[in-house]
Amino acid sequence: METIQSLKERFTAFMDSVNMDYTPKELYAPIIYTLYQKGKRLRPMLCLLACDLFDGNIEDALYPALALETFHNSTLIHDDIMDQASIRRGMPTVYKKWNTNAAILSGDAMLPLAFAFVMRTPNAIGAVKLLNQVHREVCEGQQYDMNFETREDVTIAEYLEMIRLKTAVLLATSIRMGALVAGASEEDQKRLYDFGIAIGMAFQLQDDVLDCYADEAVFGKKTGGDIVENKKTLMVLKSMELASSEDREALRSLFSPSLSMDPDVKIRSVKAIYDRLHVKEAVEQTITQYFREADACLDAVDVAEDRKGILREYALRLLGRDK
Amino acid sequence: METIQSLKERFTAFMDSVNMDYTPKELYAPIIYTLYQKGKRLRPMLCLLACDLFDGNIEDALYPALALETFHNSTLIHDDIMDQASIRRGMPTVYKKWNTNAAILSGDAMLPLAFAFVMRTPNAIGAVKLLNQVHREVCEGQQYDMNFETREDVTIAEYLEMIRLKTAVLLATSIRMGALVAGASEEDQKRLYDFGIAIGMAFQLQDDVLDCYADEAVFGKKTGGDIVENKKTLMVLKSMELASSEDREALRSLFSPSLSMDPDVKIRSVKAIYDRLHVKEAVEQTITQYFREADACLDAVDVAEDRKGILREYALRLLGRDK
Repeated sequence: METIQSLKERFTAFMDSVNMDYTPKELYAPIIYTLYQKGKRLRPMLCLLACDLFDGNIEDALYPALALETFHNSTLIHDDIMDQASIRRGMPTVYKKWNTNAAILSGDAMLPLAFAFVMRTPNAIGAVKLLNQVHREVCEGQQYDMNFETREDVTIAEYLEMIRLKTAVLLATSIRMGALVAGASEEDQKRLYDFGIAIGMAFQLQDDVLDCYADEAVFGKKTGGDIVENKKTLMVLKSMELASSEDREALRSLFSPSLSMDPDVKIRSVKAIYDRLHVKEAVEQTITQYFREADACLDAVDVAEDRKGILREYALRLLGRDK
Repeated sequence: METIQSLKERFTAFMDSVNMDYTPKELYAPIIYTLYQKGKRLRPMLCLLACDLFDGNIEDALYPALALETFHNSTLIHDDIMDQASIRRGMPTVYKKWNTNAAILSGDAMLPLAFAFVMRTPNAIGAVKLLNQVHREVCEGQQYDMNFETREDVTIAEYLEMIRLKTAVLLATSIRMGALVAGASEEDQKRLYDFGIAIGMAFQLQDDVLDCYADEAVFGKKTGGDIVENKKTLMVLKSMELASSEDREALRSLFSPSLSMDPDVKIRSVKAIYDRLHVKEAVEQTITQYFREADACLDAVDVAEDRKGILREYALRLLGRDK
């Protein structure tokens, strides 16, 4: 079996070997800019690790892994326009560095690249179907996310379904893609997909906690961003559930769109309520549940236990639970 | 064989029968709004006609035909943002009726629909490859079109390549898709593709002429739009080629981005030069050449001559040459 490090190196070398010398340059420059930024290569890595889990041919998984990364970056380029985000991975976003039209069209043009990549594997039709299904779900997740910005009555179930679509399904599909390419059984593919969903949910909820409570030096940005932007994360929804009627009223006015308050004061006030209600612990409990679910899914996969360690380790590292 | 009318009716009935009852509603409402507007259904019709040419099973071509229409409309939704077009088919464009974010995301979400549709045919992988290839080319064509807006030295060859990518390849792919679905030979698929390219080029160049010289009552909008917008169509490029150095200077200043002139005066001035140089006739000659090329491609297709009449007739009608 390969190590996490050797797979990462292999994928990086592969990406460097792929011909991206297409015209018109104006169309492909933002694509290359985005795709070749340094990153964790989370989705490709999950794909390759899953392929290796079943002792599949890593060669067959490299293009599908690149397809997942290309697709993911295409959604980021469009999301950054919609969210008016200026910085991503410490660099200007495409719509800021170029302009909105360039970002729309380059994001569009990444899709035929992604689909051409995903078809470069023996089970091409299976791979295409996985990528196409997740494309649709990610669009739906983004729409729910946009809908929730202007809704006051988002439920916990709705929020969880939104992050499932927006984040978890692509991680799950990345893992399933590797299993598919390796010729795993339909049952094992489904188990790994469910493993990926659970990991993806835990990963996103962890992010919600970190946005509030991370060590800023490690987190790399100021905490409290979600609070300032009135994002209806599980932290907010859970606190509304746990709050007394006074605290609920206080939270409502703190998250009112018409509120004008110094951001730091707002963050401090919200976190004081979170602390009182032990919201962090409540959300961490949910994360632990997802984590146990993921474990159970991986346990059920029909390969020797000693092959599973590396994927489990990667998932733990992803969740920052390896320390 | 079917008639043009019977195929059109069959496709309309098919579209009405397709389930579009997806959630979230906010994502799919702009898609349904766009897809179900009255239109010529040019691309589906070409697909169905080509399938029927080879006596293929029309049932197998219906979903691929819908895929082509869905894909085409997705590009229109994004193009309308980029071109800031407020009206399409007499209706507000998606970005005007909703907003830019809705138009970006709905346009994105049409692609997984299109790809899911195109796979609902026996030769799914062949059909996916055709659609994916054309997706890429259409993006490249749109980028060239955007590049040309700020370039003063566009050549005729570059312009023709741009309209090939932006318009002709999708018509050609639509025809080829029908041939593929019907199980036509690779050679015949290529001949029909080339037929489609030639028809598509003729169709776009005809549009360039009509934008200047159409009967406004028939054309449905004011003529001269391309002149006002400084579009570098074949009319302009050909006139620069044919012009004396004085006329060339006059054209250059008429098409200068810094010019401020009453639009009607500008149109009259440009058309006076076009008339003097017989540009309309020159472009019509090019159209006739493409038309002959199309004819030759169709002639070479290995099916009985009497089966070809209907596709030829449809192409003629498309080009307004049936009157």
